[in-house]
Amino acid sequence: MSTKYVYAFSEGDATMKNLLGGKGANLAEMTKIGLKVPTGFTVTTESCNLYQDNNCQYPEGLWAQLKDAMLETEKLTGKGFGDAENPLLMSVRSGARVSMPGMMDTILNLGLNQETVEGLAVKSGDRRFALDCYRRLIQMYGDVVLDVSMKNFEHALEAKKTQKGVELDTDLDEAALDELVNEFLGIVKEKTGNDFPADPDTQLDMAIKSVFDSWNNKRARIYRKLNNIPHDIGTAVNVQVMVFGNIGHDSGTGVAFTRNPATGEKEYYGEYLMDAQGEDVVAGIRTPKPVTEMAQEMPSQYEELKKVYGILENHYKDIQDFEFTIEEGTLYLLQTRNGKRTAQAAVKAAVDMMKEGYITKEEAIMRVDPNQLDQLLHPVFDPSAEKQVIAKGLNASPGAATGKVVFDSDKAVEMVENGEAVILVRTETSPEDIHGMFVSEGILTARGGMTSHAAVVARGMGKSCVAGCDAIHVDEKECKFTVGDITVKEGDWLSIDGSIGEVILGQVPTKEAAIGADFKELMSWADEIRTLHVKTNAEVPRDVQVAKDFGAEGIGLARTEHMFFGDDRLPWIQRMVLATDETERKAALDKLLPMQRHDFEEVFTIMDKLPVIIRLLDPPLHEFLPKEDEDIQALSQTLGISAEEIKKTAESLAEFNPMLGFRGCRLGIIYPEINAMQARAIFEAGMNVQAKGINPIIQIEVPLVGKIDEFILIRKIIDGVAQEMGIKDKLPYQVGTMIEVPRAALTADEIAREADFLSFGTNDLTQMTSGFSRDDAVKFLGAYVDKNIYSKNPFETIDQEGVGLLMKICVDKARQVKPDIEIGICGEHGGEPESVKFCHRIGLDDVSCSPFRVPVARLAAAHAVIEGKSK
Amino acid sequence: MSTKYVYAFSEGDATMKNLLGGKGANLAEMTKIGLKVPTGFTVTTESCNLYQDNNCQYPEGLWAQLKDAMLETEKLTGKGFGDAENPLLMSVRSGARVSMPGMMDTILNLGLNQETVEGLAVKSGDRRFALDCYRRLIQMYGDVVLDVSMKNFEHALEAKKTQKGVELDTDLDEAALDELVNEFLGIVKEKTGNDFPADPDTQLDMAIKSVFDSWNNKRARIYRKLNNIPHDIGTAVNVQVMVFGNIGHDSGTGVAFTRNPATGEKEYYGEYLMDAQGEDVVAGIRTPKPVTEMAQEMPSQYEELKKVYGILENHYKDIQDFEFTIEEGTLYLLQTRNGKRTAQAAVKAAVDMMKEGYITKEEAIMRVDPNQLDQLLHPVFDPSAEKQVIAKGLNASPGAATGKVVFDSDKAVEMVENGEAVILVRTETSPEDIHGMFVSEGILTARGGMTSHAAVVARGMGKSCVAGCDAIHVDEKECKFTVGDITVKEGDWLSIDGSIGEVILGQVPTKEAAIGADFKELMSWADEIRTLHVKTNAEVPRDVQVAKDFGAEGIGLARTEHMFFGDDRLPWIQRMVLATDETERKAALDKLLPMQRHDFEEVFTIMDKLPVIIRLLDPPLHEFLPKEDEDIQALSQTLGISAEEIKKTAESLAEFNPMLGFRGCRLGIIYPEINAMQARAIFEAGMNVQAKGINPIIQIEVPLVGKIDEFILIRKIIDGVAQEMGIKDKLPYQVGTMIEVPRAALTADEIAREADFLSFGTNDLTQMTSGFSRDDAVKFLGAYVDKNIYSKNPFETIDQEGVGLLMKICVDKARQVKPDIEIGICGEHGGEPESVKFCHRIGLDDVSCSPFRVPVARLAAAHAVIEGKSK
Repeated sequence: MSTKYVYAFSEGDATMKNLLGGKGANLAEMTKIGLKVPTGFTVTTESCNLYQDNNCQYPEGLWAQLKDAMLETEKLTGKGFGDAENPLLMSVRSGARVSMPGMMDTILNLGLNQETVEGLAVKSGDRRFALDCYRRLIQMYGDVVLDVSMKNFEHALEAKKTQKGVELDTDLDEAALDELVNEFLGIVKEKTGNDFPADPDTQLDMAIKSVFDSWNNKRARIYRKLNNIPHDIGTAVNVQVMVFGNIGHDSGTGVAFTRNPATGEKEYYGEYLMDAQGEDVVAGIRTPKPVTEMAQEMPSQYEELKKVYGILENHYKDIQDFEFTIEEGTLYLLQTRNGKRTAQAAVKAAVDMMKEGYITKEEAIMRVDPNQLDQLLHPVFDPSAEKQVIAKGLNASPGAATGKVVFDSDKAVEMVENGEAVILVRTETSPEDIHGMFVSEGILTARGGMTSHAAVVARGMGKSCVAGCDAIHVDEKECKFTVGDITVKEGDWLSIDGSIGEVILGQVPTKEAAIGADFKELMSWADEIRTLHVKTNAEVPRDVQVAKDFGAEGIGLARTEHMFFGDDRLPWIQRMVLATDETERKAALDKLLPMQRHDFEEVFTIMDKLPVIIRLLDPPLHEFLPKEDEDIQALSQTLGISAEEIKKTAESLAEFNPMLGFRGCRLGIIYPEINAMQARAIFEAGMNVQAKGINPIIQIEVPLVGKIDEFILIRKIIDGVAQEMGIKDKLPYQVGTMIEVPRAALTADEIAREADFLSFGTNDLTQMTSGFSRDDAVKFLGAYVDKNIYSKNPFETIDQEGVGLLMKICVDKARQVKPDIEIGICGEHGGEPESVKFCHRIGLDDVSCSPFRVPVARLAAAHAVIEGKSK
Repeated sequence: MSTKYVYAFSEGDATMKNLLGGKGANLAEMTKIGLKVPTGFTVTTESCNLYQDNNCQYPEGLWAQLKDAMLETEKLTGKGFGDAENPLLMSVRSGARVSMPGMMDTILNLGLNQETVEGLAVKSGDRRFALDCYRRLIQMYGDVVLDVSMKNFEHALEAKKTQKGVELDTDLDEAALDELVNEFLGIVKEKTGNDFPADPDTQLDMAIKSVFDSWNNKRARIYRKLNNIPHDIGTAVNVQVMVFGNIGHDSGTGVAFTRNPATGEKEYYGEYLMDAQGEDVVAGIRTPKPVTEMAQEMPSQYEELKKVYGILENHYKDIQDFEFTIEEGTLYLLQTRNGKRTAQAAVKAAVDMMKEGYITKEEAIMRVDPNQLDQLLHPVFDPSAEKQVIAKGLNASPGAATGKVVFDSDKAVEMVENGEAVILVRTETSPEDIHGMFVSEGILTARGGMTSHAAVVARGMGKSCVAGCDAIHVDEKECKFTVGDITVKEGDWLSIDGSIGEVILGQVPTKEAAIGADFKELMSWADEIRTLHVKTNAEVPRDVQVAKDFGAEGIGLARTEHMFFGDDRLPWIQRMVLATDETERKAALDKLLPMQRHDFEEVFTIMDKLPVIIRLLDPPLHEFLPKEDEDIQALSQTLGISAEEIKKTAESLAEFNPMLGFRGCRLGIIYPEINAMQARAIFEAGMNVQAKGINPIIQIEVPLVGKIDEFILIRKIIDGVAQEMGIKDKLPYQVGTMIEVPRAALTADEIAREADFLSFGTNDLTQMTSGFSRDDAVKFLGAYVDKNIYSKNPFETIDQEGVGLLMKICVDKARQVKPDIEIGICGEHGGEPESVKFCHRIGLDDVSCSPFRVPVARLAAAHAVIEGKSK
């Protein structure tokens, strides 16, 4: 028996997403649970893959199966595909395993031609409607299948409206549409040299192939890259009987969510348009009405719709995003899928559904993508700030955003590459705008509703979005928009508040987000489950406090050099760098000691009873010296050292490859007095806060160790200071090391013998293991990700097969020698969910990340445990 | 029973070097085989280590054992230590496991005091002699044990000679010595506040402790560092009955080698001084006579000495360097050890001894240190050059050296650090000059013989040395020397030929060394034994030919970028770098193609039938652009591109860490046309030479691969060119990769699946694995080696525990997947003996090094096999 490539909706179910795609599997599932779904069938993703592999030829047997499925559809509907008396019309839609909204092609009204259009006219009793369907088919098919630019059809349509003196498409009468159909057919003939194909089988065949082809179009590829969707899973194709929402005043179409996707509230959320096709709602061309208004306009369908909300959510136990069409009073479901939602909605719905008994705590945790949390944690506009609100639109995706206005996506990318923040303003967005939306701080559109392209995509990306802001008039050609008598031009500052839909002139100051009770509850569940400790990389008291409030269980990395950059300190560290002998160096260090001590006291006080890892001075010394002549002159005056001397020192310290130069523990080995000062400052701070009843947990970290002998030498300096101060027993402390040099990871057994703890510095470890510096790799890393050499940027997500392998070797070797040695990570990867999960799997004890990433890491750590159980 | 710390010479043998030190073990061995050795005993190295560990206290029981040994010595000699009638005098000498000539302390004539000196006077019948011994004891003991500067004694001695109107020490009469002894005793009293210790036991005790202490003096530490001797093996102490070569005209002392240590000739080689102590010969204060002259002066002792030559060489089966003293006609042996020798002597003696049946081929091979071969292979003065020979001295250590004259070792180091080559000129050298000798090209001394300090050390270091050149008068204070009416000042150019003893004014051109028959024979034995293939890193035809003549079995690394630096090529590679699009870039590459092809033809022709690994373009592109304004202007004119444009490109290509930047295979991934051109040039060259009957063995190497996907992409480019050219089957070729990025080594299993061969680039691998760039590490690597963090510079000798571990992981992973994959090394380590041996042990197939290192690698590879068998 040959492979089955075609599944009727009645043959599949929701578990078959890989084969039938998300849309197909759910159409089958809805059919199975008795919801009213127009008859149809799905061509499998496997068919798509075989088609791609086979030089764009169907696999053997597919066409025959398609023909059989069409026969079955004709039997079920009692209509004929190409039957001039009683024509069957079909839609063809893409449907990948993962939703890629708007990225691939759709063709409606297949089956129409010069004969069948008249049959449809008779059957529907509305020849104008039939002609409108036909011209839509020619237009879509022409654009998608025949590659005739959409502009041609749009120009003809505009011309026709002008000629007839009407404003809306719907105002064109039957005669006008008759003419328009002929003009469209002429355009096809002119541009392609061939007649528009009248044969319904040819139409179907070509439409399916076009959907297959659209899997590899540019915007689909970009979308997959941005969303980490593999390129080789293919799309299914859903072939379905047409139902019409544009067949009169007892027809309509809508999109709904079982809960509010912006807030998570349980409510009848959705929008509809009377007498319209589905695309009209999604594309944002007309601004639709809230579904609640159906109570007046179509009370019985509204009651049915409310039942659908319940059935879907009860069945799927998650927020459903579904599409419906009402054809002459009958409500059909055309699609359902898990609804994209804001972080806030994800959290609220997860917590509520757990309490409603739909899901377990673990399921609730898994419902929130750790990457999304950023949205909840980042600043909002300061409510006390003065704001010049110039317009209000729909609060389509929450968050505060400020940037320079830009009207074109390419230009947006260009400005962001030049280091600017932008707000993308469009009449409406389309899939071609994806790259511009991705780089923008926020998106403002003049048209389109809560489920418009702009709104859906912005929520998915966690971008602020104000949609459907009719008050503004966007002139994309002139690069400006107007609101009343205010004109905003490209480059002007604008702020938008996606949480309340405000559009504000200029820049608005922001403040920290308040963390809601739902969020706290969810995080407490995550904390119950996770085994990884989550710490923070911070040293400035304000950041330390924020991190603690976000749940940091200590400091995983306090970078002492960050403490040297204050105006009161920099001259002294510069004096130290410029010292020509140990005496001068010690004198400068003596000045720095009380400042460092004070910093440490603050940090210890905030992190009372929590461990604090303090890294000794790390960067190359030349980083502290000024580069510009002007600054050198100023420093020369401050320190009374000649500018020549300063330049000479800077030159002597200059390095070919600073990353691989004189830094880290190497500084302490050549100038032990630096580390001795730091140790003294730490211990004195510890003693001082102890006297105030604080319990400091001190861990001193030696950076850039490659060989155990380096560690031993530095540890001797630290222990020497401790001994001199007689703090033993009074003030316990540990000495450990960063693992950031590959050699250290390879010899972790030797290092673990001497070190009390290890902490991966995966930024440097990645740079050295892979042989590219982060600063320089920008020249080629983009191309590397494009060519799929690395599937993700290894500086964002740990390269598990390379750097990760080295980490595993390190953990294994260290634990062989000292089974309970504490091992953590403090590179930026420590706050990236995939990397956090990897750290859990290889058995690390803790991850440390920037303060705002702490909740992300906490949630990811819980995900790691749950994912581990399900394996 | 307590540990035995003291061994009589009659209790030990030559196998006990670790415990008794080299000198002690050999004194015991000579005693055992019946040679006449003054009675004595050895305090073990273990005692020294325990002493060091124990805050400079003897281990328990040592002192009692020393007392017992002294009692036994008194019994054997019939004399008493401190006996005023018949005094026993002892010497105390250091003696480590490895010879460290002159580095540690020696004290003679222990046992003398105001009473015993008179006993010695009576017994010897020479009160002047007895007083001279006594003043020598006070002087040595004062300097070494009591830390009274030697200058004090020397000033007193000089003053005494002036006062008495005599020139030589030996001209001072008994009365003068009586006075001098009193003055010396006064100096000790004045400088230390105490009387010179009269008690012989105290003298012995303190002398032994001083020798222990001298293990850690500065010059001993430096010597051990230079010679890779561990710091923790300690020295033994030999306590021996004094015999006197300075007791009249039937007494004398000498140093001899059983074969000529400069040439390896079997002859009665050595020097002696009548009426002198041993130190007088070694220190080079008087210039001694060849031992052959003893035939006249002491015929019977000469006959006895000739027998000793035979006995020693027959017993030890190696060149012996021995010391003897004749006391009133009786020949005593004071020391024997394996003689240090030049490379030439090592080779000749090894080959001769094998033929004489003393040793096997394998032993002969092991007799030559691969590091020494450099001496044989490097240039000699061009014999046809004009030379102004201004003096002749002893040909103490062969080789041609040219440099600027310097008279002080500190100054020598300073000049060399400033990039100058120097010749160190001294009246005589002492252990304090070690650091100056180490950095000099050659050493010239006015005094001292073939076994003087300068001569012995220079041979050990492989430095050219002309010693005992009496014609020159060195004025170290004024920094000049004179020969007749010629004055040579600091900074003047001088050349010396250590092979024939010539001192030549100015610089002399050099030429290649001729390789002798002995050398060829020894190398042929090495080739029979070794299993590693030895290739060369070369691409310029002249170098390729030299390497082949030195026995290279192919090219392990041809760096294509080296071929781009010719005047005819550089503008075109620069044009390529400055190209703004692919068309421009291809046009420039088209110009380069025939030049590359021509280079490859030459290389293939020389390396007919031998494998040639060609590495694709590796360095960052900015390396090809000029840096100076002047050069930019010139290039601007040549290429017709504005200077601004050139600067802009250079800036855009500038990198923070070029080593970790846009280079290696990354270039080919972004600009595939570069590698395509190179592949085409290689294949065209291959076809062209094939047509001439040459058999090219082509291996193309992809640089800087970190991830297998990179390799696959570049391999596709190469295979694409091959396919396009239709060379398949006609011109076989392999494609492999460098292993220089840690990530590649870690994932070698994946890489081996696709690559035909692997070659370690250990320079970069060391830099990335250890996290320091070679250029920048100079700032701290010296201190690292001093502090023993790295025992050797990891850029010279593979860091076996770190980088080597990664190499092992790589080899294991690669061979798991492809057991017979060819794996080599082409970093500079490939010509360093320890590293070569390591490569053998981890199972590499070949090593590749610079042409002059090829014989070194061949010999080291044979050593590796032999050492492996003996384990």
